[in-house]
Amino acid sequence: MISATIVTAAMLAIGDELLSGRTKDKNIGHLADMLTLVGIDLREVRIVADDEAAIVESVNALRGRYDHVFTSGGIGPTHDDITADAIAKAFGVECIHEPRAMELLGAMYKRRGMEFTDSRKRMARMPVGAEHIVNPVSTAPGFRIGNVYVMAGVPQVFQAMLDTLLPTLHAGTPILSRTVRSPFGEGDIGVPLTEVQKKHPQTSIGSYPKFDGRSFSTEIVIRARDPSFLDAAEADVAAMIDAISRTRAP
Amino acid sequence: MISATIVTAAMLAIGDELLSGRTKDKNIGHLADMLTLVGIDLREVRIVADDEAAIVESVNALRGRYDHVFTSGGIGPTHDDITADAIAKAFGVECIHEPRAMELLGAMYKRRGMEFTDSRKRMARMPVGAEHIVNPVSTAPGFRIGNVYVMAGVPQVFQAMLDTLLPTLHAGTPILSRTVRSPFGEGDIGVPLTEVQKKHPQTSIGSYPKFDGRSFSTEIVIRARDPSFLDAAEADVAAMIDAISRTRAP
Repeated sequence: MISATIVTAAMLAIGDELLSGRTKDKNIGHLADMLTLVGIDLREVRIVADDEAAIVESVNALRGRYDHVFTSGGIGPTHDDITADAIAKAFGVECIHEPRAMELLGAMYKRRGMEFTDSRKRMARMPVGAEHIVNPVSTAPGFRIGNVYVMAGVPQVFQAMLDTLLPTLHAGTPILSRTVRSPFGEGDIGVPLTEVQKKHPQTSIGSYPKFDGRSFSTEIVIRARDPSFLDAAEADVAAMIDAISRTRAP
Repeated sequence: MISATIVTAAMLAIGDELLSGRTKDKNIGHLADMLTLVGIDLREVRIVADDEAAIVESVNALRGRYDHVFTSGGIGPTHDDITADAIAKAFGVECIHEPRAMELLGAMYKRRGMEFTDSRKRMARMPVGAEHIVNPVSTAPGFRIGNVYVMAGVPQVFQAMLDTLLPTLHAGTPILSRTVRSPFGEGDIGVPLTEVQKKHPQTSIGSYPKFDGRSFSTEIVIRARDPSFLDAAEADVAAMIDAISRTRAP
C-alpha cells in the first residue's frame, strides 16, 4: 500500500487457452472497469499457462507487491484445473476438499440427479484456511486466501463472483446494476452505445449478446455506485434503443 | 530456448488505458493466434502502465527468459508514449531520434501538408542500434532491439507490423491472408463464422467491423501458412455469406 488512500491491485489470468488464442480473455477488461469504478488502482496483469511453477511464481510476486490479487481460471473439474493446488503451494499450505464446498456441490448434483464424480469434487479443492467467494451462477465457489481472490475463468461466473466480492473490499460500497434489454444485436448498438458510455464515465456499461437461433439481441448492463448515475445512463440507453427502432420502422 | 524445436515468446502490453478499462486489449488474442499459427509458443503475457520502471523491469525479466518478446503500445506522439525510452533504458543504451525514421516521417508529413512537430518527432525515437519494423498503415515504424520487438498499440497497426515481422522470425514461412467482404455486421455473422473457424483450425479468421454511418458491414480476414487451407476456409466463408443472404431475401 503506497498511502492510506491508494489501494493497488493486480490480476493473474490463468489458462493455456488464453495463450494459444483459442479463448479471447474478457475478464481483464471487466476487472479493470470494475476496479476503476470502486477506486482501486489496477497496476499489473499477467497471463500464465496452467503450469504450477508459473502460477506459484506469479502469485507470490504479485501478492507481495499489491494490496489485492485477483485470479481467473483453472478452478473447474478437469485435470488441467490446477489453480487451487498451485495457490496452496504458493502459500505453503495443504490443499483439501473443503467440507462446506463438498456439501454445496454434493447437494447441487443430487438435486440435478447427477453423479458427484471425482473430477467434479476437484471443484471443492481449496487451500486450508481459505474463505468461500459465493458463485450464484453455477455453485462451485471461488475462494480468498490472504490478499488473493481466486475466481472462475468463465466470464459470467467471474463477473458474478466479483459482484459479490467487491463490496467487501472497498468500505462496503456496493455496485448497483441495471439491465436494459435491446432487441438489436451488438452490431447495431455498438457505435451509439460507445457514445452513451463516453457521456457517462461514472458508469460501466457492458453488452452481452443473446442469440435465439434466428437473430441477435443484447442485454445491456449498466453498473455504478450511485443510483443517480444509473438513472441518467439508463435513460440514455433507452433513448438510444428508441432511436434505432425508429430507423427500422417502415 | 528449451530445445532446438521449441521457440518461446512473451508479450508485454503497455498502456494506462488497458489497466483502467478504457481500452479493451485486442492485441494479446491476435498475437496468440498468429504465434500458434507459426508454431511459436506464447508462454506469458504482462500488462503494465505507461511507467518507466514497470516497463524496464518487465522487459528485462521477459527478454532473459523467452526467445522473443513482443510489446504493444506507447510509441505514439504524446507525452505518455515512453516505451522507446524505457526499452533503451532496459538495454542500457541511448535513445535517439533515429535518422531514417525522421526522414520517413518528415516526408510523410510534408506530403500531407502537416507540420512535423516535436511531439510527432517522438515517433522517430528508438534505442541506438535498433532496426525498423515497417508500418505500412501509418508510416511511424516499430523497432527491434535484441530479441524485443516494439510495436504499436492500435490493433490495425500492431497487426500490420506483425504481418511484416513474423516471416522473418520463423524460417521465413510467410503467413498468407485473404479478405472477404461481408455486407452483414458482426452480430449477423458471429455465430456461423465461429463454426467456420472451428472447421478450419489451421487458419486464423478475424472479423473487422465497418460502419458507414447507416449500417455495419464486415471485412473477414483469413490467415494461414498454406494456400490450400486458405482456399477451403474462403469457400466456407463465401457459402456462409450466401446462406445469410438467402435468409434476408424477400
